[in-house]
Amino acid sequence: MKATRYEGNKTFNVIETEVEAPAKDDVRIKVAYSGVCGTDVHIYHGMMDKRVNFPITIGHEMSGTIDAVGDNVTTYKVGDKVVVRPLDDRGVKPSDKGFNHICEDLKFIGIDSPGSMQQYWNVPAFTLHKLKTTTDLKLAALIEPLSVAVHDVRLSQLKHKETAVVLGGGPIGLLVAMVAKNTGATVIISEINPVRISKAQDLGFDVINPTHTDLIQYVKEKTEGRLADVVFEVAGVQPALDVMTEIAGIRGRIVMVAIHGEKKNIDLFKFFWKELKLIGARVYEKEDYEKSIQLITDNQLPFEQLITDIQPLSKIQEVFENIDKKPDGLKILMDCQL
Amino acid sequence: MKATRYEGNKTFNVIETEVEAPAKDDVRIKVAYSGVCGTDVHIYHGMMDKRVNFPITIGHEMSGTIDAVGDNVTTYKVGDKVVVRPLDDRGVKPSDKGFNHICEDLKFIGIDSPGSMQQYWNVPAFTLHKLKTTTDLKLAALIEPLSVAVHDVRLSQLKHKETAVVLGGGPIGLLVAMVAKNTGATVIISEINPVRISKAQDLGFDVINPTHTDLIQYVKEKTEGRLADVVFEVAGVQPALDVMTEIAGIRGRIVMVAIHGEKKNIDLFKFFWKELKLIGARVYEKEDYEKSIQLITDNQLPFEQLITDIQPLSKIQEVFENIDKKPDGLKILMDCQL
Ligand SMILES: NC(=O)c1ccc[n+]([C@@H]2O[C@H](COP(=O)([O-])OP(=O)(O)OC[C@H]3O[C@@H](n4cnc5c(N)ncnc54)[C@H](O)[C@@H]3O)[C@@H](O)[C@H]2O)c1
Ligand SMILES: NC(=O)c1ccc[n+]([C@@H]2O[C@H](COP(=O)([O-])OP(=O)(O)OC[C@H]3O[C@@H](n4cnc5c(N)ncnc54)[C@H](O)[C@@H]3O)[C@@H](O)[C@H]2O)c1
Ligand SMILES: [Zn+2]
Ligand SMILES: [Zn+2]
Repeated sequence: MKATRYEGNKTFNVIETEVEAPAKDDVRIKVAYSGVCGTDVHIYHGMMDKRVNFPITIGHEMSGTIDAVGDNVTTYKVGDKVVVRPLDDRGVKPSDKGFNHICEDLKFIGIDSPGSMQQYWNVPAFTLHKLKTTTDLKLAALIEPLSVAVHDVRLSQLKHKETAVVLGGGPIGLLVAMVAKNTGATVIISEINPVRISKAQDLGFDVINPTHTDLIQYVKEKTEGRLADVVFEVAGVQPALDVMTEIAGIRGRIVMVAIHGEKKNIDLFKFFWKELKLIGARVYEKEDYEKSIQLITDNQLPFEQLITDIQPLSKIQEVFENIDKKPDGLKILMDCQL
Repeated sequence: MKATRYEGNKTFNVIETEVEAPAKDDVRIKVAYSGVCGTDVHIYHGMMDKRVNFPITIGHEMSGTIDAVGDNVTTYKVGDKVVVRPLDDRGVKPSDKGFNHICEDLKFIGIDSPGSMQQYWNVPAFTLHKLKTTTDLKLAALIEPLSVAVHDVRLSQLKHKETAVVLGGGPIGLLVAMVAKNTGATVIISEINPVRISKAQDLGFDVINPTHTDLIQYVKEKTEGRLADVVFEVAGVQPALDVMTEIAGIRGRIVMVAIHGEKKNIDLFKFFWKELKLIGARVYEKEDYEKSIQLITDNQLPFEQLITDIQPLSKIQEVFENIDKKPDGLKILMDCQL
C-alpha cells in the first residue's frame, strides 16, 4: 500500500509499505479521501515540529470504507462507510469534568499519532461514526471540519433571527457561516482575500471586505443599532480581534474559533461595558459529529462548492507547495487510492 | 442643608444650600450614609473629568429615609427606609434588547447626574428599593456594591461545591467572595496588600499572596487538578489577567468585574484549549438589588467588618486625602447628617 510521511523540513515522502491486520479493538479503513487542513499546512511549515514526532503520516479529515475488523469489534463490518472522529481520549481523568473532547491528556489522531494520508489506516473502533451507504465519500471528507463549525455554532447558542458576523471566510469560516445561516440567523461574512470574497458571494452570503467598507457601520445599519448577537472569530489576526468587540451588541457572544499562538490585545472595557461573552471553542463532541453527518447526508447546503480541488495522494508534496504559492483555494481533497 | 461638591483638581467643597421640594415623580431622601466607592476616588483623581460635569455632588452607595414625596408618587411615603439603584435607564431603546441596566444611553446617577453626598437628595421614585423598618442603615449603604457582587456571582452560574478564585480582595472582591461562599462554593482569594490579606483572613477566607505563593500550584492542589470552576477578576491589573487563564480549569468561567481602561494582553490560546468563557459583568439588575437587600436584611454574613471607617460628610476633603495616603481601608461611610 501507499503511505505518505512528513519528514520535517517541508518534505513529504510517499512510501510503499505492508497492509497490517487491525489490532483486536481496531479496524482497518480503506481511506477514500483525506482533506488538507490548515493544521496540516502548519505541520508542513515546521510550525509544529515540537509536537509532531516525524517521520509521521498526517491527516485527520477523511472518509473511507472498513476493510478489516479486529477480533473484539462487533459494531462495524467490512464494507461499512465511516468517518473517524480523531480524538483519542483514553487518558481522560475526573479532573476533565466529563469534557472528554478537550481532556488534558487528549491525543489528536493525525498529529500525535498516525493519520489518514495513506491508502489503508488502522484506527480504534471507538473513533468511528458510521455513514449511510448512500453518503458521498467526497462530501464525507468534510465531516470533520463541518463538525468544528457545528460545535462553534452550538456553543454560541445562536438563535433564529439573530445576526451573526463571521470574521474570516476560509474553509472553517465558510462552514461556520453555512451552519449559522441554517439555524435561521442572518449572516454577514468579513473577508479580505478577493478570491475568497467571490466564493463566499457565490455561496449566497453577504460579504464585506473590511479594508474597503466600515464593518462596524455596516453591521450597525443592518441591525438597526442592535449590532451582532454572535461574532465568530475565524480569521486569527489582530484586526479581527480589534473589530470583534466593536461589532458585538449588548450581551453579544464572541466565539473564539481561531487559534492564537501568542497573547493578544483585547478590549476588556467593551466586555465590561456591553457585558459581552467570549466563548473558547475547540474541536467537537460526539453530538456535533452526529449533526454534521446528518447535514452531509441530507446534502441541502452547498458543501460541494467548498471542494476546490481533488488530487492523488501520490502528489502530496506538489499539493502542499501549491498551497503556499496560491492560498485562494478552500478545501483540497487527496484521493487516497491514487 | 449641607451638600458637597467636587470642583475638579482634587477639591471638594461643602456648601449650604436650600432643601428643595421633590418634582412630581421624585422623592426627597434624608441621606443617612453614603459609601466611598473606587469610582468616587477615580473622580477625585481627575480621571473622569471628561465624563463628569463639575461642580457636581457625587456618591451612589447610600441609604436613607424618605423625607418628602412628589405629587405622583404613591408607592412610597415619608419615613420609608430606602436605597437608590442609581441607574437612570429612561433612554432605553429596542436595540438594548431589554438589558436596561447596561442600555446604550444609561445615565449613572452620582456620576452623570447629582449623587448622594449631601444631606437631602432628590431622586426619581423609580430608582428606589424599600427596606424593612428594622434594616440597619449603615449596612444598607453596602447594598449597592453588594449588588455588584450578587450580579457577578449570578452571571458566573457558580454552583454549590464548585471552586471560585477571587483575584483582588478590595471591597468588591471581598463582597464577591462572601456571596460566592454563601452559594456553597469553595473560595480562594488572591491579594497582595498585607492589611487586606489579614482582613480577608479575619473574615474566614483562604487567602493567597501570589507574590509569595505559586497561586497556580495552590489552586491545582486544592482542587485535585480540576483547577477553578470560576475566576473573578476583581484586581484590575495585568498579573491578574495573566494568571486567570492559568487557574481556570476545563470550561472554566472567568468573570470580568474589573474595569480595564486600555487594551490588555490576553492568552486566547487558553480560551481555545480549555474552552474557557469570559463573562463581562457591569453593575446589577433589579433582581440583584432584591437579593442584596435580602442578604443585608438577614445579616448572616460579616458585612459589618467591611466598614472600616465612618466620617462626617463635612470632612469629605480630608477623607479622600487620607485614602490616597493609606489605601488599606475597605469601605468608608460618610455620615451625611454630620
Ligand atoms: N477551534 C478549533 O477547534 C479549530 C479547528 C480548525 C481550525 N481552527 C482555526 O480556525 C481558524 C480558521 O481556519 P481556516 O482553516 O479557515 O483558516 P484560513 O487561514 O484559511 O482562514 C482565515 C481567513 O481569514 C481571512 N482574513 C485575514 N485577515 C482578515 C481580516 N482582517 N478580516 C477578515 N478576514 C481576514 C483570510 O483571508 C482567510 O481567508 C484558524 O485560526 C485555525 O487554526 C480552529
Ligand atoms: N463591574 C462593575 O460594575 C464594577 C463595579 C464596581 C467596581 N468595579 C471594578 O472592580 C475592581 C475592584 O474594585 P475595588 O473597589 O474592590 O478596587 P480595589 O482597587 O480596592 O481592589 C483591587 C484589589 O486588588 C489587589 N491587587 C492588586 N494587584 C493584585 C494581584 N496581582 N493579585 C491579586 N490582587 C491584587 C489590590 O491590592 C486591591 O486590594 C475595580 O477595577 C473597579 O473599577 C466594577
Ligand atoms: Zn483540522
Ligand atoms: Zn460604585
